[in-house]
Amino acid sequence: MIEIVAFDADDTLWHNEPLYSATTNRFRELLASYHSPAWIEQRLYETEIRNLRHYGYGIKSFTLSMIETAVELTEGRIKGSEISEIVAYGKEMLAAPVRLLEGARETVSQLMQSYKLIIVTKGDLLDQESKIARSGLGECFFNIEVVSEKNRTTYERICRENRVEPSQLVVVGDSLRSDVLPAVEAGCHAIHVPYDTPWQHEVVADEQVTGHEFLCASGLGAVPHLIAGLYPDPDSPG
Amino acid sequence: MIEIVAFDADDTLWHNEPLYSATTNRFRELLASYHSPAWIEQRLYETEIRNLRHYGYGIKSFTLSMIETAVELTEGRIKGSEISEIVAYGKEMLAAPVRLLEGARETVSQLMQSYKLIIVTKGDLLDQESKIARSGLGECFFNIEVVSEKNRTTYERICRENRVEPSQLVVVGDSLRSDVLPAVEAGCHAIHVPYDTPWQHEVVADEQVTGHEFLCASGLGAVPHLIAGLYPDPDSPG
Repeated sequence: MIEIVAFDADDTLWHNEPLYSATTNRFRELLASYHSPAWIEQRLYETEIRNLRHYGYGIKSFTLSMIETAVELTEGRIKGSEISEIVAYGKEMLAAPVRLLEGARETVSQLMQSYKLIIVTKGDLLDQESKIARSGLGECFFNIEVVSEKNRTTYERICRENRVEPSQLVVVGDSLRSDVLPAVEAGCHAIHVPYDTPWQHEVVADEQVTGHEFLCASGLGAVPHLIAGLYPDPDSPG
Repeated sequence: MIEIVAFDADDTLWHNEPLYSATTNRFRELLASYHSPAWIEQRLYETEIRNLRHYGYGIKSFTLSMIETAVELTEGRIKGSEISEIVAYGKEMLAAPVRLLEGARETVSQLMQSYKLIIVTKGDLLDQESKIARSGLGECFFNIEVVSEKNRTTYERICRENRVEPSQLVVVGDSLRSDVLPAVEAGCHAIHVPYDTPWQHEVVADEQVTGHEFLCASGLGAVPHLIAGLYPDPDSPG
């Protein structure tokens, strides 16, 4: 009965948040002579969130937000060479190796035997395409959807475009906010595979989760079994 | 026989290049005390092209390239307040009104009666979605494809995903390099609607055009007639 498995990418198939954390650390060190690390990090986060409506998600947006924060926090005293460093941080992030999560390759290889696999991800278009290519998993996916936001409408559209009922699609992702809850609201199934250190912006309050039914996996390796259990084969023993 | 009309967006449905030109002018003025306008413009263009493989197309990429060029051209002497101005240029570009080209609304309204219309555009995902929404034409299009590059493979994939033969799809766009030539190479039809002042990067040499068959329209108003003529109705008089 499940036709399509729609994977999130960042922090679901490969590590992503550590790249942002490491760059945030470098940024805090760069500005260490001006402000405390905690204050720098807080202001960067505020700038990022304020800029989402202008820039959307992704590394280019993050780089622009670092530059804006650096000018603000130094009251314009930031040096050209320091701006160059921030630009270089962004380019290094774009070129960083793609580190698959444990079990990603095996899980995807197994699931592609039985289901049509797609990726639904936020972020910069070119960067996401490049990561998918570099991940070595590109050939396993029928389609890659880079979207500007993940909400109920996004998953409804994806079902429509792929000509399946919502009940025939299961979303697998690390974010309750972007993957699990909107997928469930669209009538899809969802499997939450939490990541160690989620991005603050993706964390949701417990009360937002109430009323949503979804499955939870401790890792990607458990996903095939959970999907098989969504519509158990009546002929299979047990 | 034509099923789908695939429109480019920037400088085909609405003005785009004047926004980049106007911002380039502001950028030249900002750095006027350091270098000649021509040199600033040349270096900015070189930075943009060099950064395409990192950043792809769009306003965020252009903003990052302006910042990088400003630091380089001032040998790091650029002030924080000037960096802020460049960041503001980018945000103003993202918020600029969408000015439709002459005949865009009428042509799209007429064509949607007979064909499935889609948009195929490069640039930032969120920015392109926002412009399509603000253009007031969003409802006329069945699908919006924001792509990182337009080549033969892009149009082949679009035909496949829309379940049509290449001969059933016609691409309408201002760029020979991105719209017309790769569409023809994919076996699609193409109509070139030149824009007054094309972006230097999109200009192609005459010899690249040789061997490609396509139609040319003086403006969007001529497009419906040209499409109707691709497979003339044998029953119609004349």
